[in-house]
Amino acid sequence: MMLYAVRMDVAIPHDLDPGHRQELISAEKALCHELQRAGEWVHIWRVAGAYSNISIFDVADNERLHEILWSLPLFPYMRVQVDPLATHPSDLAVADAAGTDPK
Amino acid sequence: MMLYAVRMDVAIPHDLDPGHRQELISAEKALCHELQRAGEWVHIWRVAGAYSNISIFDVADNERLHEILWSLPLFPYMRVQVDPLATHPSDLAVADAAGTDPK
Amino acid sequence: MMLYAVRMDVAIPHDLDPGHRQELISAEKALCHELQRAGEWVHIWRVAGAYSNISIFDVADNERLHEILWSLPLFPYMRVQVDPLATHPSDLAVADAAGTDPK
Amino acid sequence: MMLYAVRMDVAIPHDLDPGHRQELISAEKALCHELQRAGEWVHIWRVAGAYSNISIFDVADNERLHEILWSLPLFPYMRVQVDPLATHPSDLAVADAAGTDPK
Amino acid sequence: MMLYAVRMDVAIPHDLDPGHRQELISAEKALCHELQRAGEWVHIWRVAGAYSNISIFDVADNERLHEILWSLPLFPYMRVQVDPLATHPSDLAVADAAGTDPK
Amino acid sequence: MMLYAVRMDVAIPHDLDPGHRQELISAEKALCHELQRAGEWVHIWRVAGAYSNISIFDVADNERLHEILWSLPLFPYMRVQVDPLATHPSDLAVADAAGTDPK
Amino acid sequence: MMLYAVRMDVAIPHDLDPGHRQELISAEKALCHELQRAGEWVHIWRVAGAYSNISIFDVADNERLHEILWSLPLFPYMRVQVDPLATHPSDLAVADAAGTDPK
Amino acid sequence: MMLYAVRMDVAIPHDLDPGHRQELISAEKALCHELQRAGEWVHIWRVAGAYSNISIFDVADNERLHEILWSLPLFPYMRVQVDPLATHPSDLAVADAAGTDPK
Amino acid sequence: MMLYAVRMDVAIPHDLDPGHRQELISAEKALCHELQRAGEWVHIWRVAGAYSNISIFDVADNERLHEILWSLPLFPYMRVQVDPLATHPSDLAVADAAGTDPK
Amino acid sequence: MMLYAVRMDVAIPHDLDPGHRQELISAEKALCHELQRAGEWVHIWRVAGAYSNISIFDVADNERLHEILWSLPLFPYMRVQVDPLATHPSDLAVADAAGTDPK
Repeated sequence: MMLYAVRMDVAIPHDLDPGHRQELISAEKALCHELQRAGEWVHIWRVAGAYSNISIFDVADNERLHEILWSLPLFPYMRVQVDPLATHPSDLAVADAAGTDPK
Repeated sequence: MMLYAVRMDVAIPHDLDPGHRQELISAEKALCHELQRAGEWVHIWRVAGAYSNISIFDVADNERLHEILWSLPLFPYMRVQVDPLATHPSDLAVADAAGTDPK
Repeated sequence: MMLYAVRMDVAIPHDLDPGHRQELISAEKALCHELQRAGEWVHIWRVAGAYSNISIFDVADNERLHEILWSLPLFPYMRVQVDPLATHPSDLAVADAAGTDPK
Repeated sequence: MMLYAVRMDVAIPHDLDPGHRQELISAEKALCHELQRAGEWVHIWRVAGAYSNISIFDVADNERLHEILWSLPLFPYMRVQVDPLATHPSDLAVADAAGTDPK
Repeated sequence: MMLYAVRMDVAIPHDLDPGHRQELISAEKALCHELQRAGEWVHIWRVAGAYSNISIFDVADNERLHEILWSLPLFPYMRVQVDPLATHPSDLAVADAAGTDPK
Repeated sequence: MMLYAVRMDVAIPHDLDPGHRQELISAEKALCHELQRAGEWVHIWRVAGAYSNISIFDVADNERLHEILWSLPLFPYMRVQVDPLATHPSDLAVADAAGTDPK
Repeated sequence: MMLYAVRMDVAIPHDLDPGHRQELISAEKALCHELQRAGEWVHIWRVAGAYSNISIFDVADNERLHEILWSLPLFPYMRVQVDPLATHPSDLAVADAAGTDPK
Repeated sequence: MMLYAVRMDVAIPHDLDPGHRQELISAEKALCHELQRAGEWVHIWRVAGAYSNISIFDVADNERLHEILWSLPLFPYMRVQVDPLATHPSDLAVADAAGTDPK
Repeated sequence: MMLYAVRMDVAIPHDLDPGHRQELISAEKALCHELQRAGEWVHIWRVAGAYSNISIFDVADNERLHEILWSLPLFPYMRVQVDPLATHPSDLAVADAAGTDPK
Repeated sequence: MMLYAVRMDVAIPHDLDPGHRQELISAEKALCHELQRAGEWVHIWRVAGAYSNISIFDVADNERLHEILWSLPLFPYMRVQVDPLATHPSDLAVADAAGTDPK
């Protein structure tokens, strides 16, 4: 599995039908919950003061990451920034997993 | 405790003394490990293809966050971007903690 | 309590219904007054030549800051920039409070 | 008197003589204290995670603001952003001073 | 009195009612003339190839500058950039006024 | 003759020989005075809080403007932004010169 | 006469009436031809992959340049960037015209 | 395997020792050839007019991509931009591989 | 033939008629297939997390590249970035074609 | 042959040996003259107020354009921006060449 940091900035047009808007938000939340339960959307935080989130995804590959993001109901109203992640050499969890002392 | 997403882009000057450079990197790693063990530096990931990391801090307040970042041996050579985080309404962990079904 | 500098740039769509526009502005002002009385919105200044303000908030944590900003009636029409603040070592008030001479 | 918000981002060259560096920082602090006591430098906050401050100045005019900033020992190593400020119509202090209820 | 350089970039929405558009432009011109006669709007130049002007204002303070700009009929359709100005040490007029030879 | 607004941001390298630096600044000032007396450099203002000026030139053509700017002793250490100017239709001086009432 | 490099990026609103759109484009082309025949619009090239052109104008002064650009039927839908040009010391044509060998 | 588009902009410091510079370039070329033979660096093109390349990598995961880029001898002198790639629905090769007519 | 890297970022207006939208997308796909079969559109990849593609074109000249891009049904809704490509000296294919060992 | 608009912004390091600097500039001028005589560098203009030129090249292909730019003695000290050009439908020369009236 591979990790990605994804920031989503949401800008729903002001003249969108309110009912449709609510449907999108509810569907977005339901899918988000489902992907969290599946272990693919491992973290989601709100950026204080913004209609934005910073999320961590753990998925099979680039293909799956795109499939998930493209399927989000609010995707057409988002600006999305993707940073593929790798293990950091200072990550303690990695050192512990390897049974070695961190150096 | 409060969460912050922090991205650090490192640019050590090319003409820095190699010995001093290595000392800085080692000291940075040691402090990073210590702060992970203390539960304040909760995640650190390498951004693929960059001398950068994306980290999550869990600290008492803005004051403590600044104290930590300012004390990093590589701080003078970093560009640092801080995003204060809040709970996201779609975070499943929050819903579970509250004993309520996610809606 | 913690301090944050927040800049808000307002851009209300030109085709918003004038009555609704006025309601938003009145509700924004009322909430701003209430938060000032509560001691959470400690400063608000107009940026000369712009539909913008620079404000200082003093709140419990990131969570509360987001709750306040998200609740502002004009929030959907604002671009918001948040800078978490810490004590500056040259701040005289801090030195005085500590009963020490500034050095 | 007039208010200005000023953000200063400091970048002292890495190869500056350490003694000279320390002299600059000490002189900067002394002048900052003096201007605070004189009531011209009314607020100074550290931006968390940055070698930067956000300050509020209350001075006679543009001329005096420039004179102060230009005289700062670290001025040659700073990027400075100035925002002239005006009274905000929602500022409670203004309403109170006028003896009127905020509306 | 104090000087400010102000650049205004105008972008009137294409779907604005043509009659209203013309009213705004006429009112803007009338107010501009009035402020020139009052000695507050001391220069206005068109930027070649743009619906923009570069202007010099000479007003009592930040408060008055904001009052003027905010009152412009086209203000809601402008992006405004303000640079507070101070005397330049190489300005010959300043040297002459002081009765000293420029050095 | 034609007008140009020119903004010059100066950044003299910190390691330039102090004597040479002073020579450059003195020569710059002398040439600036000479061009003001010649009526080509008609305004020069300091931007408050910056090692920058905003100037107005009144010269024969693009060729002469470039010749002047290129010849400035500090030119190699400046970032220069040029805006060619035209008459603004709201300029009162223009209306007066034409013997017509401003409309 | 003086030269200017001008880049025009065109963005006609998608909801403009198609008939009006076609009229604007035809009028733009006719005026462009007329100005080419008059020797004022000396070059026009399409930027590959963009609804943009890079043009060279040879006109009397800034005033005339602005008059031309402002009069273009598509001007309200363009972002325009103007670079005033001067003779380059390496331009062979200049050297030849002066009857001197290029040096 | 997964694809990534990577753009590398190279800026070797002008004062680097020429011999060391040549060693870096030769080592970079050798490693590039080796990774091409291994099938991981599948395309490399020069961007016309720049010391830059646009490359396509086909590697196991983010971890391997970072390992490769980090190991490049010129990495400390590069600005690197990574775009993780997925299959495009209009890619004919994909349609052919699936034995289906493109629709 | 010549190569170009082209990135297309698509932003179809939200209020476009859904039937028209679908027609555009289908026509875009058909033309894309045709140009792939003709050998002019040699690669197309989806950028993960974006309504964007990165493509490689192999065409006769700038003229043909522009003709293709301009003719795309979605062109009016795209931001297009073109990078003309040249052979990279480290490209193994080039070395092999020349029958020489890569050096 | 194909046309390209190229802008070159030159920034020679201040500490370059003056003799070497002069050699580079002379060699640059000689090569520029040679390429003008060969008909490949068809226009070169100085941007007023900048150490920059805007040039038009007419070369066989991307490969040749890169070969020329890469070979310029000042290339290592330039930022170069390349815009591949195509025929503009409003270009009168094109219409005339085709023996048709411009429409």
